[in-house]
Amino acid sequence: MVNIAVCGATGYTGYEIIKILLRHPKADIRVLTAKLDKPTKISDEFPDLKGKIDLICEELVISSILKKKVDVIFLALPHRVSMEYAAKFIDKGKIVIDLSADFRLKDVKVYEKYYGQKHIYKDYIKSSVYGLPELYKDSIKRTRFVANPGCYPTGSILALAPLLADNKAAGDTIIIDAKSGATGAGRKAALGLIFGEVAENLKAYKVGVHQHAPEIEQELSKIAGKKVDMLFTPHLVPIRRGILTTAYVALKKKSDLSSLIRLYKSFYKTAPFVKIYDEGLLPQVHDVANTNYCCIGIALSSDKKRAIIVSAIDNLLKGASGQAVQNMNIACGFPETMGLE
Amino acid sequence: MVNIAVCGATGYTGYEIIKILLRHPKADIRVLTAKLDKPTKISDEFPDLKGKIDLICEELVISSILKKKVDVIFLALPHRVSMEYAAKFIDKGKIVIDLSADFRLKDVKVYEKYYGQKHIYKDYIKSSVYGLPELYKDSIKRTRFVANPGCYPTGSILALAPLLADNKAAGDTIIIDAKSGATGAGRKAALGLIFGEVAENLKAYKVGVHQHAPEIEQELSKIAGKKVDMLFTPHLVPIRRGILTTAYVALKKKSDLSSLIRLYKSFYKTAPFVKIYDEGLLPQVHDVANTNYCCIGIALSSDKKRAIIVSAIDNLLKGASGQAVQNMNIACGFPETMGLE
Amino acid sequence: MVNIAVCGATGYTGYEIIKILLRHPKADIRVLTAKLDKPTKISDEFPDLKGKIDLICEELVISSILKKKVDVIFLALPHRVSMEYAAKFIDKGKIVIDLSADFRLKDVKVYEKYYGQKHIYKDYIKSSVYGLPELYKDSIKRTRFVANPGCYPTGSILALAPLLADNKAAGDTIIIDAKSGATGAGRKAALGLIFGEVAENLKAYKVGVHQHAPEIEQELSKIAGKKVDMLFTPHLVPIRRGILTTAYVALKKKSDLSSLIRLYKSFYKTAPFVKIYDEGLLPQVHDVANTNYCCIGIALSSDKKRAIIVSAIDNLLKGASGQAVQNMNIACGFPETMGLE
Amino acid sequence: MVNIAVCGATGYTGYEIIKILLRHPKADIRVLTAKLDKPTKISDEFPDLKGKIDLICEELVISSILKKKVDVIFLALPHRVSMEYAAKFIDKGKIVIDLSADFRLKDVKVYEKYYGQKHIYKDYIKSSVYGLPELYKDSIKRTRFVANPGCYPTGSILALAPLLADNKAAGDTIIIDAKSGATGAGRKAALGLIFGEVAENLKAYKVGVHQHAPEIEQELSKIAGKKVDMLFTPHLVPIRRGILTTAYVALKKKSDLSSLIRLYKSFYKTAPFVKIYDEGLLPQVHDVANTNYCCIGIALSSDKKRAIIVSAIDNLLKGASGQAVQNMNIACGFPETMGLE
Repeated sequence: MVNIAVCGATGYTGYEIIKILLRHPKADIRVLTAKLDKPTKISDEFPDLKGKIDLICEELVISSILKKKVDVIFLALPHRVSMEYAAKFIDKGKIVIDLSADFRLKDVKVYEKYYGQKHIYKDYIKSSVYGLPELYKDSIKRTRFVANPGCYPTGSILALAPLLADNKAAGDTIIIDAKSGATGAGRKAALGLIFGEVAENLKAYKVGVHQHAPEIEQELSKIAGKKVDMLFTPHLVPIRRGILTTAYVALKKKSDLSSLIRLYKSFYKTAPFVKIYDEGLLPQVHDVANTNYCCIGIALSSDKKRAIIVSAIDNLLKGASGQAVQNMNIACGFPETMGLE
Repeated sequence: MVNIAVCGATGYTGYEIIKILLRHPKADIRVLTAKLDKPTKISDEFPDLKGKIDLICEELVISSILKKKVDVIFLALPHRVSMEYAAKFIDKGKIVIDLSADFRLKDVKVYEKYYGQKHIYKDYIKSSVYGLPELYKDSIKRTRFVANPGCYPTGSILALAPLLADNKAAGDTIIIDAKSGATGAGRKAALGLIFGEVAENLKAYKVGVHQHAPEIEQELSKIAGKKVDMLFTPHLVPIRRGILTTAYVALKKKSDLSSLIRLYKSFYKTAPFVKIYDEGLLPQVHDVANTNYCCIGIALSSDKKRAIIVSAIDNLLKGASGQAVQNMNIACGFPETMGLE
Repeated sequence: MVNIAVCGATGYTGYEIIKILLRHPKADIRVLTAKLDKPTKISDEFPDLKGKIDLICEELVISSILKKKVDVIFLALPHRVSMEYAAKFIDKGKIVIDLSADFRLKDVKVYEKYYGQKHIYKDYIKSSVYGLPELYKDSIKRTRFVANPGCYPTGSILALAPLLADNKAAGDTIIIDAKSGATGAGRKAALGLIFGEVAENLKAYKVGVHQHAPEIEQELSKIAGKKVDMLFTPHLVPIRRGILTTAYVALKKKSDLSSLIRLYKSFYKTAPFVKIYDEGLLPQVHDVANTNYCCIGIALSSDKKRAIIVSAIDNLLKGASGQAVQNMNIACGFPETMGLE
Repeated sequence: MVNIAVCGATGYTGYEIIKILLRHPKADIRVLTAKLDKPTKISDEFPDLKGKIDLICEELVISSILKKKVDVIFLALPHRVSMEYAAKFIDKGKIVIDLSADFRLKDVKVYEKYYGQKHIYKDYIKSSVYGLPELYKDSIKRTRFVANPGCYPTGSILALAPLLADNKAAGDTIIIDAKSGATGAGRKAALGLIFGEVAENLKAYKVGVHQHAPEIEQELSKIAGKKVDMLFTPHLVPIRRGILTTAYVALKKKSDLSSLIRLYKSFYKTAPFVKIYDEGLLPQVHDVANTNYCCIGIALSSDKKRAIIVSAIDNLLKGASGQAVQNMNIACGFPETMGLE
C-alpha cells in the first residue's frame, strides 16, 4: 500500500484522481488539499463521494503533508503554482506526479515564453521524466518525479509517434487539428466557459500560441530524431469530456493502409491503453469517454500519399488523471492497469 | 423616432434588446453602457453586431446620457444597482424600462428579505407599473416607468391568470414546477454556470427561497383577488434559452378541457404574443425559442379535477428583453408588436 | 460463477448490463442476442468493448441459448416482445430478469390499456416479483423471475415510499414532475429523438397517458395500503442519462425537516444504493450519473405542510441495468453491491 | 410579388425557407409539399408557424403546382429525388432553386460515383448555375435554374476563394477540417443522429468519401484555374446548427497577415453576407447562428508560410436556405439581402 496526497482536490483532475484511487487496491488517500474559503469536506464539494471518502480539504502546507507519512503526491495545481511544491516534495524523497506543465518543457526559455513567468526551479527539470508511458515506461519505472503530459499532447503524440519513429513522414508541415471538450480548461469560473457561451458554439482558439504546441513539438522532434515542423490548432466544442485529434501527415512515399495499421499495432503492442482500429474504422469520443484508453484510427488520401490519423481520448483520464495513476503504477511497481480498468 | 440608451449592454438581456431595436423602425440607439475594464465597441464584444452597430460601451454616467437627448432608457442592470439610476432618470422625465427586480415587488419588506438589501427608493415603487402587457396594458400606456417582469414570473403568471381570474381554482396549493435554461442566470463568470457543471446535469435550486416566488405570488394574488397559496420550484436544465413551466391546479369543480381552452383563448384574445394550443397539444421550448411568444397548453387529470398547464417562453425575449421592447412600444404609442415579429 | 445471456444486447440497457457484468467477479457472459441484419460482433457495435468481449450477437433462439448452459437471462427487449421469452425461460427453470414492462403491472387490464396489446402469459404475472430491492429484497431472494422496474417508477417510488409507508401524506393528489434524459426512450431511430429535435428543447409528453403512471400508482398504493391519488408528468430534457424527479406531497400535519430526514434515513438504512441528503442539500443528476445510486433530498414549504422531495438516478443504471444486476445479485445470493461499485 | 412553392417543406431546410419567406416583402408562399402519411398543416408540424402560415402540405404533384400560378420553386428534396422535378419545372419556364446536389457537379461520372445512382437528366446540368453569389452573381442574375451549394462547400469555398483566385497557394495539399452540427444531416430518423449517440460525442466521418469533397474540389479548381489538390475531412459535433471550417494552406511565399486580410476584404467588398475579421480575431459559430453571414478570420503560422483560415456559417442558412433565398433575390431582381437581415 502507498499513502497518497492529492493537492488540488476540487478541480476536475483532482476529483478524477480521487475517484480512480478509491477503486485502486494499493492506494490509500491520506491528504487532500484545495484552495477554499474554509476547510470543506470533499464530499460536500462532490456529493457522489459521500460515504466513500469524507476527508477534509486542507490548505496545502508541505510540513503537515509530510507528517502524514505520504509516499506519493499528485499535484493537480495550476501551472506556475506547482513548481515550488514539486521541488520541495522531491527534496524530501517523495514520489511526485505533477499534472501541471511546469516540468514538461525541457527548454526553460520556451516555458517562460508560453507560460509568461520565470521558471525558478530549473534544476529540477532535468530530473523529471515526461510521463507518457507508451514512450518512456522504462524511465518512469526508475524515476520519483513524473511530469504528466498535457491533454492535447497525449492525443497528438500517440497519434503520430509510430509514423515518426519509423521515419515515414515527408518533411511537410504536419497539421494537427484538435477538438476538446470544456473540462479541458479546468473547473473555474470564467466567462468564456459558461454554458451560454459554450453550448451551440464552436471555435478555434489560441491559434499559433497555445502552450501545448511547444510540448507537442518537443516530443515529436525527440521521436523523429530531428526538428518536426507542425501546426497545432485547438478547438473548443460543447462536450464535457473528450478530445478528438485529426492529424494530417504527408508521407515519404505512397503507403497502403494495412501496412500502416500493422506498424501502429506493432508500435503499441505492449501498451495496454492504446487500441489501434482496423481498416475502415475511426474512433469517436464515445469509444473512450470515462476510460483511460487512447483509440487510434487511420485513413489515407485517395492518392495514398497523405495519412489522416484520428485519435480519441478522455481529456480528464488518459489526458490527465488516468495517465497520472498509470504513471504512479509504473513508478511504484504496480501493474500498469491497476485501478484503471 | 425615439432615442434610446441601453444600460448593461453586454449582458444577455442588453444584447437581446440591441438586436431587437436594430430591427425596430422607430428606435435609434444612441447610448450603450457597460461595466468593462476599458471602453469597448459593442461589436468587439458581440462580433455578429459588426457593421450593424459600432457604438462604444461607455461607463454609466447619468449626465452624459442626458446630454444625448435620449427618450427611453432600458436598464439591464443587476438588482440593487438599478434602483438609483431608475429613480434619477424618472426624475428627469425619461421613460424607463427597468429589467431588474428593484421595483417589481410592492411590499418593500418582501423585497428586502429576498434581495438582501435595503430599498432606498421606496417612493418610486408605487409609481412604477408591472410590465406584463397581457394584464396591464392600459396602465403601461399611461406610465413612464415600467418594472419589467422576471422570466419565471412571466411564464408562471401567464399560465395561471385565466384560471384565477375566473375563480376556477380550488383553495389547494398551486404547484409550479419550472425548468429554465442557463442564460436565465445572466452572462457572468460563476462556477455553477460553467459548461462542465451544467451540461448533462439537472437540478432543483433555491427551493422555497427563490426571489421570483414572491413576485409570482403577488401577481397571482392580485389576479385572484385573494392570497393565493402556491409552491414554486425552479430547475436548471442544460439549454441556453427557454423556460418550460408546468403548473398543477386543483379545480373547484370537474371541468372539461374544451371549455378551459375556450376560457384561455378568450382571456388572451387581444394578446398578440400569447398562443393557446388546441386540445392534445402542449408547447415545447422549440416552439418559442428566439420569439416573443408565450405558448400555453392545457391537460386534465383523468378525474378532470386537476388542470396541468404548460407554458413555454424564451427567457431572454418574452421573459426579458422582448417583453421590455413590447412595453416600450405600448408606452410610446407604437404598435405592440413592432420590431418583435 | 453464473453463466449469463443478455437478450437485446445492442440497446442502451443491454450495453450497460454487459459493461457491468464485465466487472462482475461472478458473472460469465455466454450469449448475446440482438435483432440485426446479420450476425455482428458486439465490439463492432460498441468499439469500447473491443478486447473485453468479442461475442457475436446472435438471433434470439431459445433452444440455442439453452444449449449454452446459461443460468441467468437478462431480457432487455421491447415491451410485448419480452413476455414469450420470459415465460419460456422460466419454464425451463432459468433465472429471468425482465427489463420490459410485461410483468410489472399486476392488473392485466391496466397493462393491456397502456401497452395496447393482449397479455398472453397472464399466469406468469403472479409468479414474478417487482424488482425494487429497497422494498422487496426478501421476495427477490426467493424468486427466479424478476420484473425489473421502469426508470421513472424507480425514481418516483423511492422518493415517496418512506412518507407513504409511515402514513404521513394527506389525501391530496401527489404531484410527480419528472425530467428524463433522452436515453430513457431507448436506442432507436425515431424523429422525435434526433439531436436537432431534442437539443435546446424541453417538453412535457404523454401527459396523463404515460405507461409508467399506473406502475407508480400500483406500487405507491401497495406501500400506502390504500389507493394513492397521484399525477405523474414526464418531461424530456437534453441530457443523455439521468432522471430528476420532483415530488410534491401535502402532509397530514406540519412536519419538521429533520424528523422527515430521519424517517428517510431509517427507512433506507439497509439499502446500499440509496443516499438521503442532509438538510439544505438536494441531489443533482451529476451526483448519480454512471452510478447505481438513488440520491434523495427533502425540502419543506414555508408553512411546513408540504414536502418537496427530489430524487436523482441514472436512468440506465438504477433505472434499468444497474438495478437488474442488483436483482441478479440478490436472486443468486451474491453480495447486493457486487459489480456495482 | 412572386408566388412560391416550397417542396420538401417539413425538412429543416424547407422549414427555414418558409420562415425567411414569411418575412420577405416580395414573396407569397402558395404551395407546400411534403411526404407525409396524410395531408398535414405545416403549423401542426412546426407549431411556431401557427397563425403565420397554415397551408396544408400536399403531395408533390407537378400539375397541381403549375395550376397555382407559382413563379419560383424551392426544391428541398433528397438527392436523386430532386432531379426529375427540377427538370420538369424548368421545362415549364419556372425559376427553380434546387437545394439538392443533383445539378451541382458538372461531371456526371463524379456525381454517379458519389451519389450512387445514374443521372437521368444530364442535359440540364449545363443549364444550371452553381448558386454561390459571392462568385457567380452575374450568372445567377441571368439564370432560371440555380443549383444551390452544399453546406460544407459554402464554408470551404468562401474560406479559400481569395487565396486561390490570387494564386497565393503553393502546390501542397490544402487541408480542410470541417466541423458541422447535426442538422446538416437533415431531419430524419436515423440511429446515428439520435441525441444519445450525438451528444457528448465527436467523430470524423466519411473520411475520403464524403460527397461534398468533389463539389469543393470542382469549385476550387475553377477558381484557381487548375486542379487543386485538397483533403476534406468532415466531423460531427453536438450542436444543432453551424459549421466551423478550418483550412490550412501552404503559401507560395511568406506573407504578412495584414495584406492577406486586405486581399480578402477586397475580394468580398461587394458581398453583403461575408465579413472578414480583423487581425487577431477568428469567427465562432455564435457569430453567425441564425444569420445568413459567412464570417472569415485568418491566422498565419509563425514562419508565415502557412495560412490558417477559419470560416463560420449557419449550415441551414448561408449553408442552405438563406443562400437559396439570396439566390432567388438575385434571380428575381430583388435586393440581394431582402428578407435576410
